[in-house]
Amino acid sequence: MQPTKVYADRRSQPSRAVIIFCRVNQIEFEEVTVDLFKSQHLSPQFRKINPMGQVPAIVDGRFKLFESHAILRYLASVFPGVADHWYPADLFTRAKIESILDWHHSNLRRGAATLVMHTALAPFLGLRTSPEAVKQAEKLLMQSLGTIESVWLNGGAKFLLGSPQPSIADLSLVCEIMQLEILGDDVRDRFLGAHEKILIWMDNVKRATSPHFEEAHELLFQVKARMLSNNAAAANQASEPSTKHKIASKL
Amino acid sequence: MQPTKVYADRRSQPSRAVIIFCRVNQIEFEEVTVDLFKSQHLSPQFRKINPMGQVPAIVDGRFKLFESHAILRYLASVFPGVADHWYPADLFTRAKIESILDWHHSNLRRGAATLVMHTALAPFLGLRTSPEAVKQAEKLLMQSLGTIESVWLNGGAKFLLGSPQPSIADLSLVCEIMQLEILGDDVRDRFLGAHEKILIWMDNVKRATSPHFEEAHELLFQVKARMLSNNAAAANQASEPSTKHKIASKL
Repeated sequence: MQPTKVYADRRSQPSRAVIIFCRVNQIEFEEVTVDLFKSQHLSPQFRKINPMGQVPAIVDGRFKLFESHAILRYLASVFPGVADHWYPADLFTRAKIESILDWHHSNLRRGAATLVMHTALAPFLGLRTSPEAVKQAEKLLMQSLGTIESVWLNGGAKFLLGSPQPSIADLSLVCEIMQLEILGDDVRDRFLGAHEKILIWMDNVKRATSPHFEEAHELLFQVKARMLSNNAAAANQASEPSTKHKIASKL
Repeated sequence: MQPTKVYADRRSQPSRAVIIFCRVNQIEFEEVTVDLFKSQHLSPQFRKINPMGQVPAIVDGRFKLFESHAILRYLASVFPGVADHWYPADLFTRAKIESILDWHHSNLRRGAATLVMHTALAPFLGLRTSPEAVKQAEKLLMQSLGTIESVWLNGGAKFLLGSPQPSIADLSLVCEIMQLEILGDDVRDRFLGAHEKILIWMDNVKRATSPHFEEAHELLFQVKARMLSNNAAAANQASEPSTKHKIASKL
């Protein structure tokens, strides 16, 4: 049987979550790059894989699936080698993880992804930015980070829900927060600087999935470097390099 | 053992989905009304049930859970009397249902709930409305309805994914669309009039869950009647009653 195909762009946070999950759990897969900046996700060919025109998507034999959380649940369920802590069979623990995954969509993701889209990506993709949308997204992102700390990382837990090992929710949420890197160190620090528990948790997820976590994020840091360099060129002025590095990058 | 407590406000679409699910599947539960218009969801007492301050939430013995999709999955999994079609054990079918539930958050829900909030509810809740947000929400809602028809109701299926019986995704999405009722018949028809498959599917879900569907939606129609009456009074003018009733209400 052919290995599972994972259609992904590593610049997309849910794509990275699926790739890291496969690598950590030694799931044999073929990565098919769908270049978002070249609009390959909107091609008729890719729409046959995912009619929504979004990454990630998978094809496992004749079975096609999109939406990263659904993909992570599926992979954790059909590959027998995946350790239980990723998506526990216990219905109570599983339900709590589902609750976090559902919450993610309308809170952390909506805040972080909207902010990244309207600030870092819009100029490159030729989209109209909206100051109002940016303001709303910043507020939602900051609230969401506070919620993660006070509800799911309460009491110095290593992972969400006080678990000693990560679940698919840890991986999905941390990949989302990592996307803030491309906003630059100052913006990232503005959001994460006040959230020490988040920083420790991100480090725990990175360690638990190393070296795959770092490897999957390499492209993101290349994009970040290019964007900062472009911004500096656009500014067209000789300014002092920032000496503000309160938080070391998570990589 | 005490019956499961369901904290809900029937004016909230995910609250109704959970209540209808319990009734249809004869799950013994105690409904605890959390009045959103009286801000009871923000009380310290309710925050102990759900720290997010949102309905629905459940307490089953010592187990607390929030997020409606997570609640529906949990109820379908722990109550042995629930028929398999609601949340199939088959991993492939289940994964497809998960994909719809995940998609719902950032598409249909985001479109419909944002539109309802910024048009019908904002004046009553003292919130600032945003024409830009309304425009975005209308676009997303219309796109989402088209997607449901072309992807999941393709080929004249009775329920999503061509299933002969409904799943928790059918129930959740239809309750979301029902919320458009409080925007008035003209606005509802503007969105649903061009989507015949959606109208047939909604009717199928209603029939499959009758009379609980109608009963759970009674309050919504009371709110609708009150809003329309308030709007008419505010207009403070004697206008001809609308004779435009292209689509009969789904109830």
